[in-house]
Amino acid sequence: MEKTIQVEGMTCEHCKSAVEGALNKLNGVNQATVDLEQGNVTVTFDENNIEIEQMNEAIEDQGYDVINK
Amino acid sequence: MEKTIQVEGMTCEHCKSAVEGALNKLNGVNQATVDLEQGNVTVTFDENNIEIEQMNEAIEDQGYDVINK
Repeated sequence: MEKTIQVEGMTCEHCKSAVEGALNKLNGVNQATVDLEQGNVTVTFDENNIEIEQMNEAIEDQGYDVINK
Repeated sequence: MEKTIQVEGMTCEHCKSAVEGALNKLNGVNQATVDLEQGNVTVTFDENNIEIEQMNEAIEDQGYDVINK
């Protein structure tokens, strides 16, 4: 399954790495890719192994706000 | 001695940490403190042990531009 999550506050390559890293290490996430210009992260994941809420939390733990919860 | 270096491209706390960390590990630097709003880093250093040029290089190695060289 794929979902694009709108994230506020990602400004630079460090932010991109922080968000992608936090998501990619979650069980059930196959691939997370941040688009800094669009301010979002597109995640492909196995919906049997992870819920959107867990991904939102991982992003917010890095200090960013999820807009389209 | 103290110098405030104008730096372009520091946008977030990760950037602040990257620049401060790169400077603080240089021999001769006592303290480096980034002000994100002002876009600068204030460095106290021992001018007998380090030259400004080395500090500028450390900043640029992190991917930022020094404006007031």
